[in-house]
Amino acid sequence: MDVATANIPVAISARHVHLTQQTVEQLFGAGHQLQQRLALGQPGQYAAEETVTLIGKAGQLQHVRIVGPPRSRNQVEISRSDEFVLGLDAPLRESGDLNGTPGLTIAGANGLVTIDSGVVCALRHVHMSTADAQVLGLKDQDRVAVEVDGAGRRAVFEDVVVRVAPDFRMELHLDTDEGNAAGVTPGMQATLLMAAPSGETP
Amino acid sequence: MDVATANIPVAISARHVHLTQQTVEQLFGAGHQLQQRLALGQPGQYAAEETVTLIGKAGQLQHVRIVGPPRSRNQVEISRSDEFVLGLDAPLRESGDLNGTPGLTIAGANGLVTIDSGVVCALRHVHMSTADAQVLGLKDQDRVAVEVDGAGRRAVFEDVVVRVAPDFRMELHLDTDEGNAAGVTPGMQATLLMAAPSGETP
Repeated sequence: MDVATANIPVAISARHVHLTQQTVEQLFGAGHQLQQRLALGQPGQYAAEETVTLIGKAGQLQHVRIVGPPRSRNQVEISRSDEFVLGLDAPLRESGDLNGTPGLTIAGANGLVTIDSGVVCALRHVHMSTADAQVLGLKDQDRVAVEVDGAGRRAVFEDVVVRVAPDFRMELHLDTDEGNAAGVTPGMQATLLMAAPSGETP
Repeated sequence: MDVATANIPVAISARHVHLTQQTVEQLFGAGHQLQQRLALGQPGQYAAEETVTLIGKAGQLQHVRIVGPPRSRNQVEISRSDEFVLGLDAPLRESGDLNGTPGLTIAGANGLVTIDSGVVCALRHVHMSTADAQVLGLKDQDRVAVEVDGAGRRAVFEDVVVRVAPDFRMELHLDTDEGNAAGVTPGMQATLLMAAPSGETP
């Protein structure tokens, strides 16, 4: 199989939570507004100043970043390594696909909230704009493979979900297990591996 | 490139330590002998009943298994995820290649030992017998690629070191980050991806 390639910035998603405004206020006080610490790669998304502690049956994870702005549902994204620390078994899911997922207790500076569901291990995915997707011959929910050339740990990840929206910026999102397994370091780029467009004969 | 394939049992190496007999006695008492809990895949190797706690600047890891029998040097094998918990930066190394590696403190039931070096993140590797290596056209220290077909997380790991000895059993050793990143479950097999032997024209 011949492949065409495209380079993609890699972002490692450390464990983080998305919270509703109601949950933010339960954890940090009535009327509390998340404070932006750092803008993230996707437009409008930011790492908040506020962090929480995740409390599972087997252990806790402290200083877990909140990613804002607030959403319509609470969602906790952790790695498989994190699952062992907490003592729970979260399924591999796309963002927002939360039915049947486990819950846990979240602690903030001023309160505790226990959620019944919302804990996932995020499926690796690549964000791209509608325009970029068109150039690459891809559409939302396609699956692609990417090669990551980390020092001493080169790897090809298959089963990467394509997520397309008009304002998305091209970015591969891996979790910390995936980033570690491929030796990802800051600023690294991945290579999108694709079948040659039909009709092209190299 | 055409490939020939071979199936290989996958073993996930959770964090563990190899200790000298002297260190075993410092941690568990004079004259203490490691007790075998479970035989491992490679002949003579076993998970001991005894566990230790690893103590780093940033945190601790408890219930870390000792792999016996005792060796001539202390060696601590952890994942990158573990490194963040402990607060140290261990290099990617082959077993036994310990020059310039960091140390930490190890706690046993009856004592503490601080080692100056010996902490590594183990390079992924595949054990095979001399006979199997000959059949596959491989030799010790070759690098190969393996495909792991974990549910929803298929991956190809390159930079896999081939380790050959007369009594080795065919087995791919990944650390927990790598196992998690590829969705490895107990009993899974990997596929060795190899260039077709020279002279073979499929």
